Amino acid sequence: MSTSVSIPETKTFHMTPDEFRKRGYAVVDWIADYYARLETFPVLSRVEPGAIRRSLPKTAPVAGEAFETILAEVEKLILPGITHWQSPNFFAFFPGNASAPAILGDLLSSGLGVQGMLWATSPACTELETHVLDWLVHMLVLPQKFLSTEAGGGVIQDTASSASLCALLAARERATDFATNKRGCDGKLVAYTSSQAHSSIEKDVQIAGIGRDNLRSIAVDEKFAMRPDALARQIDQDRRAGLIPFFVCATVGTTSSNAIDPVPEIGAICQREKIWLHVDAAMSGTAALCPEFRYIHDGLEFADSYCFNPHKWMFTNFDCDCFYVADRKTLIKTLSVLPEYLRNKATETGAVIDYRDWQIPLGRRFRSLKLWFVIRHYGIEGLQHHVREHVRLAQEFAGWVKQDQRFELAAPVPLNLICLRAKGGDELNQSLLDRLNRSGDLYLTHTRLNDRLTLRMCIAQTNTQARHVKRAWQRIQEETEKLQSGK
Amino acid sequence: MSTSVSIPETKTFHMTPDEFRKRGYAVVDWIADYYARLETFPVLSRVEPGAIRRSLPKTAPVAGEAFETILAEVEKLILPGITHWQSPNFFAFFPGNASAPAILGDLLSSGLGVQGMLWATSPACTELETHVLDWLVHMLVLPQKFLSTEAGGGVIQDTASSASLCALLAARERATDFATNKRGCDGKLVAYTSSQAHSSIEKDVQIAGIGRDNLRSIAVDEKFAMRPDALARQIDQDRRAGLIPFFVCATVGTTSSNAIDPVPEIGAICQREKIWLHVDAAMSGTAALCPEFRYIHDGLEFADSYCFNPHKWMFTNFDCDCFYVADRKTLIKTLSVLPEYLRNKATETGAVIDYRDWQIPLGRRFRSLKLWFVIRHYGIEGLQHHVREHVRLAQEFAGWVKQDQRFELAAPVPLNLICLRAKGGDELNQSLLDRLNRSGDLYLTHTRLNDRLTLRMCIAQTNTQARHVKRAWQRIQEETEKLQSGK
Repeated sequence: MSTSVSIPETKTFHMTPDEFRKRGYAVVDWIADYYARLETFPVLSRVEPGAIRRSLPKTAPVAGEAFETILAEVEKLILPGITHWQSPNFFAFFPGNASAPAILGDLLSSGLGVQGMLWATSPACTELETHVLDWLVHMLVLPQKFLSTEAGGGVIQDTASSASLCALLAARERATDFATNKRGCDGKLVAYTSSQAHSSIEKDVQIAGIGRDNLRSIAVDEKFAMRPDALARQIDQDRRAGLIPFFVCATVGTTSSNAIDPVPEIGAICQREKIWLHVDAAMSGTAALCPEFRYIHDGLEFADSYCFNPHKWMFTNFDCDCFYVADRKTLIKTLSVLPEYLRNKATETGAVIDYRDWQIPLGRRFRSLKLWFVIRHYGIEGLQHHVREHVRLAQEFAGWVKQDQRFELAAPVPLNLICLRAKGGDELNQSLLDRLNRSGDLYLTHTRLNDRLTLRMCIAQTNTQARHVKRAWQRIQEETEKLQSGK
Repeated sequence: MSTSVSIPETKTFHMTPDEFRKRGYAVVDWIADYYARLETFPVLSRVEPGAIRRSLPKTAPVAGEAFETILAEVEKLILPGITHWQSPNFFAFFPGNASAPAILGDLLSSGLGVQGMLWATSPACTELETHVLDWLVHMLVLPQKFLSTEAGGGVIQDTASSASLCALLAARERATDFATNKRGCDGKLVAYTSSQAHSSIEKDVQIAGIGRDNLRSIAVDEKFAMRPDALARQIDQDRRAGLIPFFVCATVGTTSSNAIDPVPEIGAICQREKIWLHVDAAMSGTAALCPEFRYIHDGLEFADSYCFNPHKWMFTNFDCDCFYVADRKTLIKTLSVLPEYLRNKATETGAVIDYRDWQIPLGRRFRSLKLWFVIRHYGIEGLQHHVREHVRLAQEFAGWVKQDQRFELAAPVPLNLICLRAKGGDELNQSLLDRLNRSGDLYLTHTRLNDRLTLRMCIAQTNTQARHVKRAWQRIQEETEKLQSGK
């Protein structure tokens, strides 16, 4: 050493590993207790807008505070503002079902604190992800082309919105021979999805510079599934107008009603027309774990890309969307920008995957750990058991609705989402929904089908059992009775 | 009840709260032990491409496995493939410094498992985020216009890449009176950033349909900071060519060399030209916690948007980028698409924030918990202490480089990143970098400045102390000596 330094070791403010251990136990205890008392909370938070903020100090503390104080305030200040997505009485939106192995896998990811943007920044982060996503190709019996050992491959995205955006961008570049990345959009590209597709497709076309005027909303049939004849007609009309059809998004399990677009027919059209087909199975793809539900993926051999969300129905906490492409080279060429400070030998060999080129952001978390934990903890048979149970409970619930003359099913129930109405118009159903949600006993959300207000009941929360579903039906019946008798 | 059901309670495969408690303790222990032995690992993983995958079974298990087995395999199979971002000897890329309170706040977020896409989906998730981001405006003394109580507001994004994409999109829509969202891009919009800006800006213009040909790379001065005269000239030239300048990204602390663009001059140009100014302080914004470093934000009063990354230098584990806009209405109008199934009363009152309209994806995690935990645990003075210590250590290191005739500084060292070279050309420096990283004693990355290979040493890991920095300098000197003497 040619230099001499003398730097005092000062107070660090950091927790020691043993302090972390003690406080970590306390947080684990808090979560365990939270799950044990989940059913005691009103599912939908009852706070008024601004109430949580008013309970918090206007400025940040100058001096550090005791961990015990912070944790106590989670209980006192934060908990009242929580809508309990993990409650067994949560039937709203999508299940978002976390589980113990997922939470613990995610904790390890936080603890390791590594970046997965490049293979080199933590090889295990990339390789475990590739490996688990290949596992899932086998588990769901997806087309082999989606395997990383073929020309395709899978990657974890935060959400299906981002997955469909990546698909849209790759499609855009394939259609323009990568000229759009270079020169920008020119208003000639046209995308297609059904009127029942997720709102993210509209957001994606706006983000990607395509413009929502260039997104065609294709009509659906009586089951709310895309009509292939209408798609073909629209494509033909657009071609004749000098436009360039380049992207179709089909949905397997729409958000509104779980409708399943006819992918074989749509796929044949896309193949003939050389249009990128993305299949969005965010809500429902998990069902394909069970052989009896694999029909939902019929036609997937036509797809250029596909996604489903373990954070929606596979016991994996947010965020975890599994996104697959049949041709990874196109995706990578679309999203790769390589500055000097990211260059490295492993990348240059071409022997590794750098997932930064498979997504919108650069940085990425070690998300495959939680997915690996879930798959290993439950095993394929544990996961199948629960998917079957959720579908069975939903079918049983649908049966009850059908048998009760005061109610009607608003859509077919292929899997675990029931769309129902009390007979009597939008006002009645809005009141019913409000009463149920205000009661705190359960939480349902709504949609509109055939321009009529419709209650959505989605069954797949981790801890939902038959008794919760039975109780939900009882409560729906009770409140409907009260409304009908003017109480 | 008009129906009768009899559903047996079957084996659930789920962990009970008490099983979760026991295994949660085990994971907390593993992490505590990991931090206690962090210095024993080679910082950069030594595995060969494919090695991790080969150690894993080809297919997923049919039957569930014991948690103890899974955790043991993290140690055995995953750990060798980890590049230790949390090591005190990690000086590569950016620090990515996690901390105990962040890990525990994130654990709570995983446990609660709520969605923050709408205010109603968990009011506390939205309100705590808004509140903590307002705290940070005060803590960093950012312009008041970024407060949610003014016309602006803050939101947590996954990364600065996504933040700058949102800024770019809002700028695009403001410049075209929201016509681009509707009709798509037309190739006339032009964006500007320096040749030293982060690669994500190029990626963003590609994603947004602007095209990289319409991104101007503005020349930098001898300190690698954007030249305002060159910016003004380019804008003028583009206007004369009939193009529409709409977006400038200035950088406060570039990734390559920590250069600080002259925001006051750039801002004045943007104001005059009515161009959206985004200031990317991902790497360095945290420094503004300390009054003596707040000069880095001079000129921020001109900015339409701004971001900095607590996951880069504020003890908050990934992902956590804080993104601010001066005019939230423009951002929201740019990114909002409202389908029926997301409509709700709270949203309709206009009294609440729905953060889904402030970001690319729809779903979002409760990320403000970890940030709240960090700020409260350390307090403003704890955070200031560490920022000062990191900068002091970096300045001391820079002094050593300057004093040693075998080395040179390749750029000014305003904060905590030192760019250096051993005198003797690219080959020598590449060998030096490879030897150091292969040794496992420390991890540095590189960049190119003035077309010469340059070592980057970034000092801000949570557990980095003076002794680690001193040892790093010693190792750099040793390996350089060996190389120069032909060993």
